[in-house]
Amino acid sequence: MMEESVNLNSTLDPKDWSSMRSMGHEMIDDIMDYLEGIRTKPVWQEIPAAVKDSFQSPVPQKPSTIEEVYHEFKTNIFPYTKGNIHPRFFAWVQGTGTPFGVLAEMLSAAMNPNVTIGEHAPMYVDQQVVNWCKQIMNYPESATGILLSGASMANITALNVARNSQLKLNIRKTGVKAVPGQLVLYCSAETHSCIQKAAEVLGLGTDAVRKIKTNSDYQININELVKAIEADLAEGFYPFCVVGNAGTVNTGAIDPLDELAAVCLKYNLWFHIDGAFGALAKLVPAYSARLKAIEKADSVAFDLHKWMYMPYEIACVLIKDNHAHRSSFAVTPEYLLQQERGLAGGPDPVNNYGMELSRSFKALKVWMSLKEHGLEKYAEVINKNILQAFYLEKLVQQADNLELLCPVNLNIVCFRYVHQGLSVNDLEELNKEIIIQLQEQGIASPSSTILNGIYAIRVCIVNQRTLQADLDLLIEEIIRIGDQLIVSLNFAL
Amino acid sequence: MMEESVNLNSTLDPKDWSSMRSMGHEMIDDIMDYLEGIRTKPVWQEIPAAVKDSFQSPVPQKPSTIEEVYHEFKTNIFPYTKGNIHPRFFAWVQGTGTPFGVLAEMLSAAMNPNVTIGEHAPMYVDQQVVNWCKQIMNYPESATGILLSGASMANITALNVARNSQLKLNIRKTGVKAVPGQLVLYCSAETHSCIQKAAEVLGLGTDAVRKIKTNSDYQININELVKAIEADLAEGFYPFCVVGNAGTVNTGAIDPLDELAAVCLKYNLWFHIDGAFGALAKLVPAYSARLKAIEKADSVAFDLHKWMYMPYEIACVLIKDNHAHRSSFAVTPEYLLQQERGLAGGPDPVNNYGMELSRSFKALKVWMSLKEHGLEKYAEVINKNILQAFYLEKLVQQADNLELLCPVNLNIVCFRYVHQGLSVNDLEELNKEIIIQLQEQGIASPSSTILNGIYAIRVCIVNQRTLQADLDLLIEEIIRIGDQLIVSLNFAL
Repeated sequence: MMEESVNLNSTLDPKDWSSMRSMGHEMIDDIMDYLEGIRTKPVWQEIPAAVKDSFQSPVPQKPSTIEEVYHEFKTNIFPYTKGNIHPRFFAWVQGTGTPFGVLAEMLSAAMNPNVTIGEHAPMYVDQQVVNWCKQIMNYPESATGILLSGASMANITALNVARNSQLKLNIRKTGVKAVPGQLVLYCSAETHSCIQKAAEVLGLGTDAVRKIKTNSDYQININELVKAIEADLAEGFYPFCVVGNAGTVNTGAIDPLDELAAVCLKYNLWFHIDGAFGALAKLVPAYSARLKAIEKADSVAFDLHKWMYMPYEIACVLIKDNHAHRSSFAVTPEYLLQQERGLAGGPDPVNNYGMELSRSFKALKVWMSLKEHGLEKYAEVINKNILQAFYLEKLVQQADNLELLCPVNLNIVCFRYVHQGLSVNDLEELNKEIIIQLQEQGIASPSSTILNGIYAIRVCIVNQRTLQADLDLLIEEIIRIGDQLIVSLNFAL
Repeated sequence: MMEESVNLNSTLDPKDWSSMRSMGHEMIDDIMDYLEGIRTKPVWQEIPAAVKDSFQSPVPQKPSTIEEVYHEFKTNIFPYTKGNIHPRFFAWVQGTGTPFGVLAEMLSAAMNPNVTIGEHAPMYVDQQVVNWCKQIMNYPESATGILLSGASMANITALNVARNSQLKLNIRKTGVKAVPGQLVLYCSAETHSCIQKAAEVLGLGTDAVRKIKTNSDYQININELVKAIEADLAEGFYPFCVVGNAGTVNTGAIDPLDELAAVCLKYNLWFHIDGAFGALAKLVPAYSARLKAIEKADSVAFDLHKWMYMPYEIACVLIKDNHAHRSSFAVTPEYLLQQERGLAGGPDPVNNYGMELSRSFKALKVWMSLKEHGLEKYAEVINKNILQAFYLEKLVQQADNLELLCPVNLNIVCFRYVHQGLSVNDLEELNKEIIIQLQEQGIASPSSTILNGIYAIRVCIVNQRTLQADLDLLIEEIIRIGDQLIVSLNFAL
């Protein structure tokens, strides 16, 4: 082996540190210019075909200068952004981030630890941030938790613990095949698809997910839930869990969490809450009572890159029963060669609480951002988003040619442009086109959904940058584009 | 709701952009100073109790200035680093990152897209990087893949596809309970614990993992494997998968992949390769033949934050059968409101290929880094690490009081300091203390393992910054500390 003529001292570090340093400064200026001026930019713009083609090129064999690479980024990537950092992005539930959050991510990459094992400061910051999450949700100190990429992973993690801990059986060892009867879990029909995905991954299967009908307000129907549980018990199924929603993705509905908690208590079921974005409304006085029942749940999942406006990715799952949590993931503790001193000391390894062994220092952006703003400021901005949704609802109700499709109850507004004489299908086409034109003209990015078979423009506000004027403009432009489409050939009556 | 006195125009953006900009520049300088001078810093240092205490403070309610927050970071976090970016970090399998990679992470956070759905450039970059990974592993164009946090998630993802696609049953729908017989999978006893964790999460259970004995070279024993499969078939179990190792965590062993492929073909088993770090040795001429069988596997998992020296987190899983992959994760395609134009257009949503819906723009650091250096440079540095391991082996063999515990075959060297007359236990204590003192004195960070019951100093080189002189120093210092310990009271004979 040693005969090969390879330089034993070859590295990837720059030969010229000063140009790497200048590059960093140039990027800082470009980023700050961009963020400071974000309001003047289009929310979204079409990607030219030539730019798309550039992403077809094969893996580079030879080096380029860092200036060339950055130039290509600025030309082909940076302008064709998703737009979720823009004040008029209202699609899906995607947060904005903050400038200090961007810098935190840079520092995190500079330290570049794997935050799973060892005695080093990032382990303690990670732990502290989980403790802060417990304080935010008013979970007991004895609860455990873990920071993850997003609510999907947080929900899968919680349901894995729920599955493993509901039976006297050792499911980790035997698998679910040993369970007498089929394990089943319950959630409303408005529940996010990641719960279904979790059931599939965990080996329970989609059939194990009972999607319970909702009331007209899109909350789970408790009577239907109880009926389903009773029927399953009678038929020999094994009910083990109820998933409640704190903010559904379609309408922001909050399930009656207190009633769900009572049902879970009665039937001895694990109570999990998917609070991807909505759980954070707990910080807002008007919602703290409705969301207090989160404290009764066995576990809660929520994102920090949504309604805490941190850069992607960062979510948290909290589990009240620390033993159930650890014993669902810890791999034979005697195998871990932990020491009392040195690098191999440190807190309980984080892989004892989840699936990952590779974890970046994502806690740092939470640590820095929460110190920067303080929790009260987050509560204020979340409250602002909610009040903006109510403000938008009023604007919709005041406009002759807009129809509200669901009363606002959190931060989501669903409505459509209407015009006398148009069929449901015509209105769907019309509203689809309105959304697309809003995007193509770079004005705003709402998304869409279907409510009771009706196509809706869906405006979801988890945006720290949105101002009142953005909502005024959104409504004006929807009406303008709708009116134009009506007079155009396609939608002429 | 509207009566509350909340400012509808409150944001988290800085009032003073110029100080945020200055802060960014200050951080760039600090980071570049730090990275440029990394060699002069201790690899690791103890965290003072007062610093640890600071991480006990409750969630901040009130804001701090960004200067205060950064000062606290520089005082309490930055100095107490894990050390894996240092040239003499050899513990576990943790990569170093690069300066340009740090800047890429900053740009990624500045754009801050969720890279799952939509028509925007990061979706195409993500796709391109997956294609590059296919080219690196010489997988067919028709293969699919996904970028993930690490090899644990990559392995779970692959095994989920393996589990779902090996039977005519619809396991996604029915769960594993419907399988006639218990599903079982095979791997060597040296296989990483994440395979066991995967089996647990997937509802198969630890019992489903058959850990096959290894030969003296720590590779899976093919005869034992075949015997186990035959025995399981005879007893009504349902064998579905073999996991081969391209680089085990203890010794860097590479299983006989060609023979494993033949066994899988014969018994119609899914062939998965855990190539967390070792798969990348495929780029090195001396290993390309031994690792060519990766191309015969149904799936392969590997990290880019290990032996591609990218900042955490970034891994990839490739699945040869794109249908098996997509149909294991895609949630009812008709539900996805994809459009032909606008933001809601774009490539096939990435959540159709994995568990996550929230995904950061981790592809950007791969895109920028591969363009910066070119693949040939990576091959050179990986080769350097391997040759450094062989160089270190020679140094160990040449030293009277060092004993090699396993012949080097990749990038890991296991050995111990020995002294005549000391028992196995004494030697274990002695070598533990040597490792800890290396760390406490800030000299180097090897890790440890147990091989055939013998405690070993384990040096794993996946470090772009390591130079030949670092290995010379490591050996000198191990001998110096060992000799000192021998003459000290504790280890006097």
